[in-house]
Amino acid sequence: MGPLAGLMLHRLVLKNTLTFGRDQDHLKIIHLSFSDMIPDRTESLFEMVPENPALGMAAVISAGDVACEKLGCTGVAGIPCNTFHAPPIWNLFKTKLNESGSNISVLNMIQETADYISRNYSSVKKVGVLSTTGTQRLGIYATPLREIGFTVLEPENQDEVHNLIYNKDWGIKSSIEISTQAREGLSEQIRLLEKKGAELIILACTELPLAIDAKVKFSAVLLDPMVCLARALIKRVDPNRLKSLL
Amino acid sequence: MGPLAGLMLHRLVLKNTLTFGRDQDHLKIIHLSFSDMIPDRTESLFEMVPENPALGMAAVISAGDVACEKLGCTGVAGIPCNTFHAPPIWNLFKTKLNESGSNISVLNMIQETADYISRNYSSVKKVGVLSTTGTQRLGIYATPLREIGFTVLEPENQDEVHNLIYNKDWGIKSSIEISTQAREGLSEQIRLLEKKGAELIILACTELPLAIDAKVKFSAVLLDPMVCLARALIKRVDPNRLKSLL
Repeated sequence: MGPLAGLMLHRLVLKNTLTFGRDQDHLKIIHLSFSDMIPDRTESLFEMVPENPALGMAAVISAGDVACEKLGCTGVAGIPCNTFHAPPIWNLFKTKLNESGSNISVLNMIQETADYISRNYSSVKKVGVLSTTGTQRLGIYATPLREIGFTVLEPENQDEVHNLIYNKDWGIKSSIEISTQAREGLSEQIRLLEKKGAELIILACTELPLAIDAKVKFSAVLLDPMVCLARALIKRVDPNRLKSLL
Repeated sequence: MGPLAGLMLHRLVLKNTLTFGRDQDHLKIIHLSFSDMIPDRTESLFEMVPENPALGMAAVISAGDVACEKLGCTGVAGIPCNTFHAPPIWNLFKTKLNESGSNISVLNMIQETADYISRNYSSVKKVGVLSTTGTQRLGIYATPLREIGFTVLEPENQDEVHNLIYNKDWGIKSSIEISTQAREGLSEQIRLLEKKGAELIILACTELPLAIDAKVKFSAVLLDPMVCLARALIKRVDPNRLKSLL
């Protein structure tokens, strides 16, 4: 939920919408980028800031002075941040939305990703997850995937994956240009999960899909949860507007 | 004002905002992508569709069932479409906004671009303009620039420029990947304007900046009007948040 993650989700909604080459065929999108109202999710979970970001997000959606619902939005919403879906944040957020009597249906990106895998890759049994250390420790993907029967594979060396994202000199977040080191490091982590048997790998941090090397062929399916969320949003608004997968 | 132009403006606002590396330092952005309410601008100007897109846009900003103003937005807005700024559209739009008693200040991208050049390139006298044929024929940039004393240079062969954007096989709009032909064609058009004496060239179509070849050095300054609009928006909201130009 850096503001760039919002841009990525927005782009994926446009990309997955079936149009007939006309701007007018796109769905209405209300994109609220109110990052100032949402404290850092990881810092909140590890008690480095006192506020729960659930409160700011509930205010954006429905309960505050500026709220999506005041725009007449009674549709469906998505939140492009993996860490926001950690139970201590997500559960309070849903409670606050219910208390405000919100009519907006907020999709859960993790749940949509799990459903997407079950529906589109029914033969897959072993799912790898690459993420920040926060997402990994909290089991944001691993817990719900295991509950529905998947074998979840995680990196042997989680610090290396975290470093791919956060290294101040060459990590994915460090620059707009992706470094060779980050790109090659991600390919290596994917290969390690493939060796462990992963048939599908979830790129469970919004930055990871940016560093995929398009020239390398991987045997596992690489899945961006934001694609699952974008497609689920379109489907809920109008299934006829959902582009088919290939 | 294809929905992708909205994404580009949004990204430029983020890129030009001074932050201290924290998501929370970004300004509030309300991004409404309601392309279904805005008929094609060029078709309207050349009377191929009966509705003036000014009406839909006024409804989005202030006067309709779904309106930015209902969100509590009393700030400043920008519209990322060159053709929308043609007088037959822009003037009706402003009239409708006034009639609705709107408190939102909508910046004019063309005016902001002209001001930006005067302010930041005070020695420049000869300005080249590359655009679609619609923008060129309507003098969307040429008229206001000439009024404030610039010599405006236009392509000898406007059809070739239009083709760079619209060619169905290799034009910039034809694919997400920019073709070599489009990239080289744009470099050639820039060189032709430089030969005519252009010291600065306005890339007056939202697609053109996508096809600039970063490996080629040009003597003229290349200017994207969306950068001028993005920076003007930030400046109006909070001048202290505007990143300095290098």
